[in-house]
Amino acid sequence: MSEPRALSGYWLRDNCPCADCRDPGNGQKLFQITDLPADLAVQETTERDGHLEVRWTDGHRSRYPLTWLAGATADRDHPRDRPGDHRTEAGKRLWRAADFAAGIPEAHWDAHLADPAERAAVLRAVRHLGFAVLRGVPTEDRQVLAVARTFGHVRVTNYGELFDVRVEPDPNNLAFTSAAITPHTDNPYRDPVPTLQLLHCLENAAEGGDSGLVDGFAAADLLRTEAPEDFALLTRTPVPFAFRDRSTELRAERPLIETDALGRIREIRFNNRSIGTLRLPAADLDAFYAAYRRFAAITLRPELQLAFRLDPGDCLIFDNTRLLHARTAFDGDGRRHLQGCYADLDSLASTLAVLDRHTEALDTLQDLFEGEGAREYLGEAVTQAEHMLQAAALAERDGAPAHLVAAALLHDVGHFHGAVTGAQLMAGTDNRHSHTGADLLARWFGPEVTEPVRLHVAAKRYLCTVEPEYRAALSPASEHTLQVQGGPMGAEEAAAFAALPGAADAVTVRRWDDRAKTADTRTPGFDHFRPLLARLLATAPGEPV
Amino acid sequence: MSEPRALSGYWLRDNCPCADCRDPGNGQKLFQITDLPADLAVQETTERDGHLEVRWTDGHRSRYPLTWLAGATADRDHPRDRPGDHRTEAGKRLWRAADFAAGIPEAHWDAHLADPAERAAVLRAVRHLGFAVLRGVPTEDRQVLAVARTFGHVRVTNYGELFDVRVEPDPNNLAFTSAAITPHTDNPYRDPVPTLQLLHCLENAAEGGDSGLVDGFAAADLLRTEAPEDFALLTRTPVPFAFRDRSTELRAERPLIETDALGRIREIRFNNRSIGTLRLPAADLDAFYAAYRRFAAITLRPELQLAFRLDPGDCLIFDNTRLLHARTAFDGDGRRHLQGCYADLDSLASTLAVLDRHTEALDTLQDLFEGEGAREYLGEAVTQAEHMLQAAALAERDGAPAHLVAAALLHDVGHFHGAVTGAQLMAGTDNRHSHTGADLLARWFGPEVTEPVRLHVAAKRYLCTVEPEYRAALSPASEHTLQVQGGPMGAEEAAAFAALPGAADAVTVRRWDDRAKTADTRTPGFDHFRPLLARLLATAPGEPV
Repeated sequence: MSEPRALSGYWLRDNCPCADCRDPGNGQKLFQITDLPADLAVQETTERDGHLEVRWTDGHRSRYPLTWLAGATADRDHPRDRPGDHRTEAGKRLWRAADFAAGIPEAHWDAHLADPAERAAVLRAVRHLGFAVLRGVPTEDRQVLAVARTFGHVRVTNYGELFDVRVEPDPNNLAFTSAAITPHTDNPYRDPVPTLQLLHCLENAAEGGDSGLVDGFAAADLLRTEAPEDFALLTRTPVPFAFRDRSTELRAERPLIETDALGRIREIRFNNRSIGTLRLPAADLDAFYAAYRRFAAITLRPELQLAFRLDPGDCLIFDNTRLLHARTAFDGDGRRHLQGCYADLDSLASTLAVLDRHTEALDTLQDLFEGEGAREYLGEAVTQAEHMLQAAALAERDGAPAHLVAAALLHDVGHFHGAVTGAQLMAGTDNRHSHTGADLLARWFGPEVTEPVRLHVAAKRYLCTVEPEYRAALSPASEHTLQVQGGPMGAEEAAAFAALPGAADAVTVRRWDDRAKTADTRTPGFDHFRPLLARLLATAPGEPV
Repeated sequence: MSEPRALSGYWLRDNCPCADCRDPGNGQKLFQITDLPADLAVQETTERDGHLEVRWTDGHRSRYPLTWLAGATADRDHPRDRPGDHRTEAGKRLWRAADFAAGIPEAHWDAHLADPAERAAVLRAVRHLGFAVLRGVPTEDRQVLAVARTFGHVRVTNYGELFDVRVEPDPNNLAFTSAAITPHTDNPYRDPVPTLQLLHCLENAAEGGDSGLVDGFAAADLLRTEAPEDFALLTRTPVPFAFRDRSTELRAERPLIETDALGRIREIRFNNRSIGTLRLPAADLDAFYAAYRRFAAITLRPELQLAFRLDPGDCLIFDNTRLLHARTAFDGDGRRHLQGCYADLDSLASTLAVLDRHTEALDTLQDLFEGEGAREYLGEAVTQAEHMLQAAALAERDGAPAHLVAAALLHDVGHFHGAVTGAQLMAGTDNRHSHTGADLLARWFGPEVTEPVRLHVAAKRYLCTVEPEYRAALSPASEHTLQVQGGPMGAEEAAAFAALPGAADAVTVRRWDDRAKTADTRTPGFDHFRPLLARLLATAPGEPV
């Protein structure tokens, strides 16, 4: 063993990025941990070309980018401090009501829909602070489901897809009366508990009926500080929660405060209405009730109570594993109607990660255009960036659909050195520019964008075969590269090309490409095309990358 | 304090069943734990009439049935041995493949739909053993969703409502190839993870492609026995699971073996394909990988591998928090098509509990008819049971809808002493027989059954007012009870009665009631009406009870 730093052998091998170990398409591992031999060890390591090359005792060879290795071993001594999957207290901001003296996290519905950055900010607030409010959501029946679908999937329960919170004549739940409701989490009798709740205000003409939120993680953190033994007791006492009506009988036994495998606060269940009968020795019950009452008293401290009013069109989104929600009593004759539904945090986090990935993609492309793109373009009179912007402007002028404007804009992105990332080198990407570019773009865009890019060099060789006048019009530099790229296609190759999906689009892109070499032409900058790219990213289907 | 046994004061008070403390309708608690005074204590206790009566230092009085108290304090010293919410190893049967030598738990789809006992057996197998197979499920697209809806709600994910498991050209998941897949749980990168999975076979003409199951709880139990430190390590090491495609980026950090607050095995996540990069000190990684490999090797032991083939029409339902599923490789040209979806165990358990409640209800009613019902009926020539069966037979002969046949059959159930349960006495039910009967039935039946029962005495007083010839035809015993019940209604009372929901139905039931006093008439027994009652129970809406 001669690792440059202390590395675990099986860990290193489990992370081998080679195409035999990991599907280059979907990134899933192709072997089982039991496939590795029992006596596996590192035979030899070499650092070369920014990689750690490893020869294993079973003959396998692995090649790890040093940048990856640095990231994978950073902070490895402090796992508790890392936010991980963003579900524990680590990396969240625990709050008091006064923290929102300047206002609560909110956004307008229209901005949430139209602007990915605004949408990301709303989702990040839910993850980081536990809640956000959307304003101006149309006060239409079932609209709350549309809100949920902007970041996830509705969790259907025995209440249906959604529930109406208003005064009912024969309520199966205190929520459907005009009584005050102290801070609580919803559905503790469900497991898995809904991790997100949405409440959309359709009408609120009642005197009273204001909303309140308490950061349950902050309350648990106070309990841990003030009475560590009570805190510990609440994390290790399963509490039976129950709900029963004529067609339902739900039951879950979970602690009031759940910690993760590292002891970090992860989930709060708090709802005295539905706590059933604990069956424990009397002394344990005394201790539990003392701890429970202490925790409950903390949740009622005024400095923890954030109060605000939901007006028609407001939709509150909050983390039901962390925040306690409450409402003041209201005049039972006053009209107050909320519609609510449940959803889950994992999908919200996924949506946020993909939005962040899109922002990073657009930033990366913009950097390429504004950095390397300013370099000369293979002997043409324009820079690479000018050439691609011209091609996109021609496509736009021709009324091309968005995916072809994007393909024209990005067709030569494979020329950029910086576009080939460590991750791609890991996956063994070659550097033929059309393929390199298409593979890079496939991380973000669908085949309607990537395939014309992938085929745009082939399209030139195809056009030279089927349109003699096309070849005659090539620029001298383009005629030169034609030879490097394999010359005109033979008849059979041309027929095969024409049958490929995306071939016709590639030919279309190719014609803009060929015309986009005019010196001193004014074209819009990358900024002009960014919204078009953002829309394409948002609608890309969930396919392997 | 003078409790008859050691009882915790706050616990006892938190379980006070009085109508001030607990909503008699929905059973939810009406106070917060912080509403109880800090120095609360028992002032005095008395045992009387099968109850423990408690006077509290704050002046409140509680009354606990001794039968309830005995149940609530039973086994209180051994919480680990109780199945609780049926999600941990406690109360489950851990298995080896040989345990199913005589066959796996299965039922036919038609029986599952038609017979509540069969449906309950299927759900109980999933809860107890982790799986069951339905045979003869129509091989229709999306039928798997209908299977899920027989016991719960479909969990929608980024895959949609359902997913197709068949060979795909550009798979984002190994599942969609023809490769062998070793035992694993699904979607460990999701949190909450789907707790149930369904796989419905539409086609399986492939060579190979057999299904396999492993009891992950049994595997974890073996690890705990053979290598307790490895077991402990796997319960306290969060493992990052990840899934990524162009529109999704899911991540969850959870241990491979999750234990509950009492240290019992509760959830297995096992899927090497989607384990990301652990970031821990090298020595911890060595220890983790040693434990992980040991656990993985146990899951592959032949004696744990249950293998069977899914044929078209088979639908496998299994607990994705417990069972690992696998499939053998198959000929990629062979046609094999499964449709799958996810759902959750809490709804399955609720459905099972309600089915059990219905069985208990029907058994209770049958016992009443066959036991106390054989007693004489208030001076009439028939027994109580004969009277009610005659009323139901008359209703049936008149072509009455099911709910009125049921109301006729059950209208006098309040006369039965045994029908007034401890739970009802707790809630302060009086013993006027129409109300007592309706309240009992409301635990199971909707108002279309209960309200005619509730009003059938009032209907007699009403009819005496509006139909003089009706009163003239009353039996002597019925004329006697009329006086006890308040005599004929005044005009105002009669008008108010007629306006009540269910009043017309009550009058209809009343006429059968009055005619159902013929000695020596042959009527069908309770058994004849049991399927009709079962159907009514199954379709009762989820309203408060």
